[in-house]
Amino acid sequence: MNKTVVYHVRVEFGDCDPARIVWFPNFFRWIDAASRHFFLACGVPPWHEKEQSIGLIGTPLVDTQASFVRTASYGDALQIHVCISEWRNKSFVQRYQVMRGEEEIMHCNEVRIFAAAKEGGGIRALPIPEDIRARCS
Amino acid sequence: MNKTVVYHVRVEFGDCDPARIVWFPNFFRWIDAASRHFFLACGVPPWHEKEQSIGLIGTPLVDTQASFVRTASYGDALQIHVCISEWRNKSFVQRYQVMRGEEEIMHCNEVRIFAAAKEGGGIRALPIPEDIRARCS
Amino acid sequence: MNKTVVYHVRVEFGDCDPARIVWFPNFFRWIDAASRHFFLACGVPPWHEKEQSIGLIGTPLVDTQASFVRTASYGDALQIHVCISEWRNKSFVQRYQVMRGEEEIMHCNEVRIFAAAKEGGGIRALPIPEDIRARCS
Amino acid sequence: MNKTVVYHVRVEFGDCDPARIVWFPNFFRWIDAASRHFFLACGVPPWHEKEQSIGLIGTPLVDTQASFVRTASYGDALQIHVCISEWRNKSFVQRYQVMRGEEEIMHCNEVRIFAAAKEGGGIRALPIPEDIRARCS
Repeated sequence: MNKTVVYHVRVEFGDCDPARIVWFPNFFRWIDAASRHFFLACGVPPWHEKEQSIGLIGTPLVDTQASFVRTASYGDALQIHVCISEWRNKSFVQRYQVMRGEEEIMHCNEVRIFAAAKEGGGIRALPIPEDIRARCS
Repeated sequence: MNKTVVYHVRVEFGDCDPARIVWFPNFFRWIDAASRHFFLACGVPPWHEKEQSIGLIGTPLVDTQASFVRTASYGDALQIHVCISEWRNKSFVQRYQVMRGEEEIMHCNEVRIFAAAKEGGGIRALPIPEDIRARCS
Repeated sequence: MNKTVVYHVRVEFGDCDPARIVWFPNFFRWIDAASRHFFLACGVPPWHEKEQSIGLIGTPLVDTQASFVRTASYGDALQIHVCISEWRNKSFVQRYQVMRGEEEIMHCNEVRIFAAAKEGGGIRALPIPEDIRARCS
Repeated sequence: MNKTVVYHVRVEFGDCDPARIVWFPNFFRWIDAASRHFFLACGVPPWHEKEQSIGLIGTPLVDTQASFVRTASYGDALQIHVCISEWRNKSFVQRYQVMRGEEEIMHCNEVRIFAAAKEGGGIRALPIPEDIRARCS
């Protein structure tokens, strides 16, 4: 079993579009927050501390696949269940299931990297930090 | 060959995160705009007109798959190449390639539906409107 | 004393810009959510219920004045203190103080209206609903 | 007469809320982009170049005052007229008028500073760079 953390979201009026449902880019906004929250909840220091030690500035996305199952609207309370389902050499797979109580709203699988700044601009992938892997598995 | 439309984006300071690159949910914001722009550029009336005639309120996303190839930052001018690569009974596949001149930044395949409001709230999928299909192929 | 409600915000990585501080439009995003939350916390039904009864669709902004006192960054927990400081005929003044514990981050005074849809598009101001005023004072 | 620059915005579906009008924080998103665009259009180098030379990382907001005159919705083309109306010692006043052709949608007066990173985090105000003032007046 993978360690799983739940991130809570309140859907607000401004998160919804003229069709009165959540405008989908907002799901990715919440998923990105849930991703970072997962690491914090597992006891990993925030990126600005890891930047001092190993140059880590964040976990940018390489690949994402998402399915939208039900719509959500303002007033809804959502729970995002997050885990890391796979560790690769320089990347990892992070999974999200967005629930409204018992109902699935959407789910998402991401490939992310641990990134450091590259000289001259841009970013590069770090090898998976072992301490992070240990805390998050 | 599928009809292809190009949507232009300027990357702004506020689109970028503390890693100084585009925060990825913003790509989905632009892709959603590029999706709607595609229909307008093909001569399809805006949704609020189609709502009067056939109840169409938008084209919500069912499924998306995206790959991030290069980072972009503020000051960049991006071109999003959009086409519809497949028509199904009640859904269609819309493709996006986000370019910075000759360089690919990311690409994305979406499954979307033509949606109408459902009584009591929520949305339902309409059959593919033939006039829209004809204009966009 | 005006009735005051506190709305809680976690600042996320994606809320911050390349200067590593909250990108200011996000404060207005939170303030708008805090505005709506204020009404709910005072026992006012959500707008989609008020729309059925009196046509109310939201409380759009007429005027806003905001001062930014300190910067905030990701990882911060913010508290937004909200009250209505003045009732006019067809508008009201809503006040916000955004705190990080004892430190003030920003404050804001807004003039808002209770809006209904106008025939042919756009919105119009409703007279202040007495039941809402009673609950929120 | 102050030098004036016009920034163009297309209002998108996702910029609008369930009331079918632009969700107001988006105006501040556009205004922030218009602010930066103003400097570029006046011939000021982008902030990441000014950071190398004088440590300038952006022009964060100190104070803003905005009035919303008319609503806008998706499909609208907006023009944001920008100028700097006042120069102070360590701040300046930037003015915005958002038009839809001949109709005013909103206007806004901001106090901003030229900011550098402060040791230990946070930002500090730089004196007005004379070369920037000369180009923008």
